[in-house]
Amino acid sequence: MLIARVIGTAISTIKDEKLTGRKLLICRQTDEKGVASGKPFVAIDTVDAGEGDLVLTAAGSSARQTTITKDTPVDAVIMAVIDHLEVDGAVVWKKE
Amino acid sequence: MLIARVIGTAISTIKDEKLTGRKLLICRQTDEKGVASGKPFVAIDTVDAGEGDLVLTAAGSSARQTTITKDTPVDAVIMAVIDHLEVDGAVVWKKE
Amino acid sequence: MLIARVIGTAISTIKDEKLTGRKLLICRQTDEKGVASGKPFVAIDTVDAGEGDLVLTAAGSSARQTTITKDTPVDAVIMAVIDHLEVDGAVVWKKE
Amino acid sequence: MLIARVIGTAISTIKDEKLTGRKLLICRQTDEKGVASGKPFVAIDTVDAGEGDLVLTAAGSSARQTTITKDTPVDAVIMAVIDHLEVDGAVVWKKE
Amino acid sequence: MLIARVIGTAISTIKDEKLTGRKLLICRQTDEKGVASGKPFVAIDTVDAGEGDLVLTAAGSSARQTTITKDTPVDAVIMAVIDHLEVDGAVVWKKE
Repeated sequence: MLIARVIGTAISTIKDEKLTGRKLLICRQTDEKGVASGKPFVAIDTVDAGEGDLVLTAAGSSARQTTITKDTPVDAVIMAVIDHLEVDGAVVWKKE
Repeated sequence: MLIARVIGTAISTIKDEKLTGRKLLICRQTDEKGVASGKPFVAIDTVDAGEGDLVLTAAGSSARQTTITKDTPVDAVIMAVIDHLEVDGAVVWKKE
Repeated sequence: MLIARVIGTAISTIKDEKLTGRKLLICRQTDEKGVASGKPFVAIDTVDAGEGDLVLTAAGSSARQTTITKDTPVDAVIMAVIDHLEVDGAVVWKKE
Repeated sequence: MLIARVIGTAISTIKDEKLTGRKLLICRQTDEKGVASGKPFVAIDTVDAGEGDLVLTAAGSSARQTTITKDTPVDAVIMAVIDHLEVDGAVVWKKE
Repeated sequence: MLIARVIGTAISTIKDEKLTGRKLLICRQTDEKGVASGKPFVAIDTVDAGEGDLVLTAAGSSARQTTITKDTPVDAVIMAVIDHLEVDGAVVWKKE
């Protein structure tokens, strides 16, 4: 899974019908301290994540292993909201 | 999913028979403001996307989860046309 | 799918038995003008592609969605030979 | 598989229910000498790996081929703890 | 598939039980002349490859399409030993 920050939302009217009602969140990968880098990607939200949250995203066929994304043409899913990240026994990022 | 811009079309006569009649669109990944970068890739259109549109593309086995691409040797599908993109509560890209 | 140029052939005697008789073509990804860059990869040919051709390749499980590659340990397949590529209404690459 | 070092832990309360009780370890890819580089990723532990261990991780659908990760929305799994790595007949990394 | 050189072996005692008895070879991707670059990865051997060999590796779910790797948590498999590589009608690499 990638550590990613939710930075926004993609709005689409014309889309695969299985996406109806789904929240399409724009994410950027971060390091273990929550510092974002690289191009954004869009993931389906399954855990009521919000803008600013640090989340875990699963890609590929693994993105379809939730009740919300089953058999759906999506290749990235948010499946966890991060509380905090620990490295070497110290908390290096914490949700406010 | 990637945010991508449709920049053109690939025309092929000799191809897997399951691709007959399918639209092969050339896309380039963009950031959340619609600025393209990186090499182009080709995705099957399932939402009647057109050149210049900003779209979402799904890759891998997820690209085969539409009625058009089922059991087809394609690894990228356009499954949504983007209306607008919001970051930090502001619209950062909007379809004209 | 990637746009790629066929640059050569890989010859192997000791291989998975399901690969017997299959053509293993060396490809390099190109941009929409046919300019190659990056490391080569090897794809199974299913459309009688030849050296110099510009082709489309599908990766991952999608590479196994042809009669030739079904249940075979291959992760890249050539599933189309490109006739021409159009960008902004102009032909930017054409098969000779 | 990637060679990776376990550098920490991700703690999450709000997550897919199939992740309950699973250990989410933060990893960084290393070379054959155990030198880490690149962005961290998070993998499910299935072999009781600990911080500092060098491990092998499998990605994508392969990450779901363990009893712990079956049908779970995860795309990376730790499936081996490395004892030592040999290159050219010499041990280039060894677990302490 | 990637063209890769086998550079060594990973030894692991604590691992998924389906990996018991399997050879975990350390590989590095090469170009068509056999010049290696980039980070190493580990692949399961299914063709009795040896150190120094140039091989083809298949990734993702395709890595599980051999009798040795079926239903196993591995995402890379060596499925061919390369005899020689031809580009533009000339042999650019040959097994000694």
